[in-house]
Amino acid sequence: MPITLKELADLCEARIQGGDLSAIIYAAADITSAQAGQVTQLTNSRYAQHIKNSTASACFIAEGFAADSIPEGMALLVCADPEISFIKAVELLHPARVYNPEIAPQAVLGNNVALGKEVFIGPYAVIGENAVIGDGSVILAGAYVGKNVKVGQNCRIYPYAVIYDDVVVGNNVIIHSGSIIGADGFGYKFRNNMHVKVPQVGNVVIDDNVEIGANTCIDRGALGSTTIGAGSKIDNLVQIGHNNKVGKNVIMCGLTGVSGSCDIEDYAILAGSSGVADHVTIGSGAVVMARSGVAGNVKAGAQVFGSPAKDKKTAYKEQIAVSKLPELLKKVKLLEEKIQALEAGVKTAP
Amino acid sequence: MPITLKELADLCEARIQGGDLSAIIYAAADITSAQAGQVTQLTNSRYAQHIKNSTASACFIAEGFAADSIPEGMALLVCADPEISFIKAVELLHPARVYNPEIAPQAVLGNNVALGKEVFIGPYAVIGENAVIGDGSVILAGAYVGKNVKVGQNCRIYPYAVIYDDVVVGNNVIIHSGSIIGADGFGYKFRNNMHVKVPQVGNVVIDDNVEIGANTCIDRGALGSTTIGAGSKIDNLVQIGHNNKVGKNVIMCGLTGVSGSCDIEDYAILAGSSGVADHVTIGSGAVVMARSGVAGNVKAGAQVFGSPAKDKKTAYKEQIAVSKLPELLKKVKLLEEKIQALEAGVKTAP
Amino acid sequence: MPITLKELADLCEARIQGGDLSAIIYAAADITSAQAGQVTQLTNSRYAQHIKNSTASACFIAEGFAADSIPEGMALLVCADPEISFIKAVELLHPARVYNPEIAPQAVLGNNVALGKEVFIGPYAVIGENAVIGDGSVILAGAYVGKNVKVGQNCRIYPYAVIYDDVVVGNNVIIHSGSIIGADGFGYKFRNNMHVKVPQVGNVVIDDNVEIGANTCIDRGALGSTTIGAGSKIDNLVQIGHNNKVGKNVIMCGLTGVSGSCDIEDYAILAGSSGVADHVTIGSGAVVMARSGVAGNVKAGAQVFGSPAKDKKTAYKEQIAVSKLPELLKKVKLLEEKIQALEAGVKTAP
Repeated sequence: MPITLKELADLCEARIQGGDLSAIIYAAADITSAQAGQVTQLTNSRYAQHIKNSTASACFIAEGFAADSIPEGMALLVCADPEISFIKAVELLHPARVYNPEIAPQAVLGNNVALGKEVFIGPYAVIGENAVIGDGSVILAGAYVGKNVKVGQNCRIYPYAVIYDDVVVGNNVIIHSGSIIGADGFGYKFRNNMHVKVPQVGNVVIDDNVEIGANTCIDRGALGSTTIGAGSKIDNLVQIGHNNKVGKNVIMCGLTGVSGSCDIEDYAILAGSSGVADHVTIGSGAVVMARSGVAGNVKAGAQVFGSPAKDKKTAYKEQIAVSKLPELLKKVKLLEEKIQALEAGVKTAP
Repeated sequence: MPITLKELADLCEARIQGGDLSAIIYAAADITSAQAGQVTQLTNSRYAQHIKNSTASACFIAEGFAADSIPEGMALLVCADPEISFIKAVELLHPARVYNPEIAPQAVLGNNVALGKEVFIGPYAVIGENAVIGDGSVILAGAYVGKNVKVGQNCRIYPYAVIYDDVVVGNNVIIHSGSIIGADGFGYKFRNNMHVKVPQVGNVVIDDNVEIGANTCIDRGALGSTTIGAGSKIDNLVQIGHNNKVGKNVIMCGLTGVSGSCDIEDYAILAGSSGVADHVTIGSGAVVMARSGVAGNVKAGAQVFGSPAKDKKTAYKEQIAVSKLPELLKKVKLLEEKIQALEAGVKTAP
Repeated sequence: MPITLKELADLCEARIQGGDLSAIIYAAADITSAQAGQVTQLTNSRYAQHIKNSTASACFIAEGFAADSIPEGMALLVCADPEISFIKAVELLHPARVYNPEIAPQAVLGNNVALGKEVFIGPYAVIGENAVIGDGSVILAGAYVGKNVKVGQNCRIYPYAVIYDDVVVGNNVIIHSGSIIGADGFGYKFRNNMHVKVPQVGNVVIDDNVEIGANTCIDRGALGSTTIGAGSKIDNLVQIGHNNKVGKNVIMCGLTGVSGSCDIEDYAILAGSSGVADHVTIGSGAVVMARSGVAGNVKAGAQVFGSPAKDKKTAYKEQIAVSKLPELLKKVKLLEEKIQALEAGVKTAP
């Protein structure tokens, strides 16, 4: 949606410095590729070098950001928080796809389904009996919403996301394609040389403003609920086992696994390909670094690395020490020889 | 399904101690949350402390388990194997959803499909030509069953599980949503600077009583079969490459990968996020610990840890040694100085 | 499709040595299992021992390969490149399933969809408005092709693969079931104690001859494109984050994750369960070994191992050194004692 520079600045709470107020801006782009007619942002000094050759028509920049070599004709959009202003610009210039309320004739709705106002249900979506879909929610083609499921308002469920029976989803939740919410947890008892399945009769409860990436799995509780707190963001291909309690505004990056019955407290960050053993607490605001495996509790605010994960500083110290180890082996061998010589010397001393 | 305490005890092979035989039990719950009208279990002394404040109406407990402070009014359900009795109780109180036999009008069945008795096929399921579905099996909405596939009796295939052509599935097999059984193995030959695809014309054969979690992938053999032995349980997001032979009652936890042509023998356990290189044998009953990467054969009964994985004790010893390494570096530096002093002393000795 | 030995040899560019020219070959099999009527290959001396007891009717073998003990009656198919000849044989004997051009009545096509010649669209496939499907492409049951998507010629999109809006797919591309192409990248800005979603308005561009395994995720660019170069092969359960540039003929094995804005240059190999941090360049032809985690740039042709990943030789040296570490600790303790003795000796020396 093209817009004038003047409108863009007003809507994004920026002050224009230079440029032509009536110029048409039609797209947003990265500073490395933005061209005439496009707006970009400069927020990281690492990219400052790119501005001087940029042909972008406008650039969001923080009040007081030291950018020299601004190309002639580029308008600066000076603002308090250029990252947030740029997000607004992207939303204006590249509006999200709107789905006009409609129940596709190819959707299958079970008995006693309660649909809110202005709901979109795509073709081949299947909505189980007694399910509730809140106002403004969009259930795209082929999404599966099980029996007794509650989906809140303004949610977006992408194609072939699967929500098993009894799951509860809050408002403004996004679930991407291929994510499976509420499959059975992985629990067996070993008897008579066989694995006896423990029934998984709990559910999953997802609070408001959660986003779940593609092909992620969140298992239902064995008894009780697996819960995801408000505002938490979960990337693709993440495994969240049964009975985990994930707090608010938690971040979990791709390919991370949380086994079961863990407490992942508010604002914790689990970086890519990390893992957490069962019955572990990751304290509020703690950071589990990429590829780390946590076997015991992590204190609030701590940063841990490695497998098994340790305090980041300790882990780094050990890493550096390991890199010196081949050299150390040689040194010790030399010391042994010297001591042998000294011992011989002492013995032969007059 | 509510039930009296007396009935519950009888059906779960427990002896009632205390409580009211005619009390109605309507649900099972964990000991940390169970309330009046609910039954729980106490099998782990770690949770023994929770019993004294519990308002649960009944609690399964082992013959001879030392539990003091039983709250007044709580019935003890004393039995030989409380975990198994509790599983029975959960099954009674929270019966699995039953799908009445039906072929949904929106299902697509290819030519010559053979359906057993009392089969359920959900809307938008697609069953390929010549497929066979055994008695009592439930194929849920949108599940895809390819050409020539055989599904045994009493299986449950969840929405959007995909079974490629020619796959064979035994009896009592559960396949959760998003799992892909029989996609092409990952095989190429590098010629003329290109990767030439090796045709993957084998299949997957899954034996009885296997459970496969959500979004797991089991690739077909290049030639011949990838096989999963009876009673094996595979968690979510597991990758099993082509031509692996997985034995009986094997456990594979979430995010584990087995590359190809491996033998994973009976009762082996691959813990979460572990991995196995190609052409490797994991011996019967061996345990690959979480996040370990196995590059060579593992003996029956062995427990290995780390990447590359080693015998658990060796790996632990090394881990402890590494934690002492920064200190060791300092010690050796001190020794060097002392030896230098000694050498100087020897030289200057009269 | 059965075929005579003579025809097989001619079509696969091999010279027959021994055997009966008119014998019927009906299948290809591995050397460990091939039987009468089947053809196999012997290309790896590790398997040479299996030939003497094989009942296979024919075996592809390289000109000059030293194979003794050829069973009587087995025809050798001598050729320049037995692996490639065998691939041809497999293709002849086990031809890939052909889908006759057809638009299933249960497919849903949006407005203004452009279908090429001889296209197959399976039941319950959903093709969004303005999508373009090239000649000869096969869109299997339930595959989802979003709005404005372009799919090239002779592609195969398996059941329940999902292609989000605006994605571009080249020619001869294979996308297996459950793969999600073009879901939102994982990007947020933390403000006022909340994660604010950065709109993900770019797309994914996949070049010719790419194969994408099952349940793999390739996220759309935040702005601009995530790109996959021609001939690259991506295994199952791989996570490719937003704005990555993947070169030509790259190999990515199962459970690998590439976070975002990386350059994975031509012919690079990312082995199983490896990971790459954001904004990293993996140079042309570099190899990231299994389970390695790359935090910084890797030079062209380098081979790296470990987490954090290092040059393979350095990493191996360190691994060996670590295995000697428990012993080293003892040695140093002994040296300390000896030095103490020496120091005492010096002090007490007359």
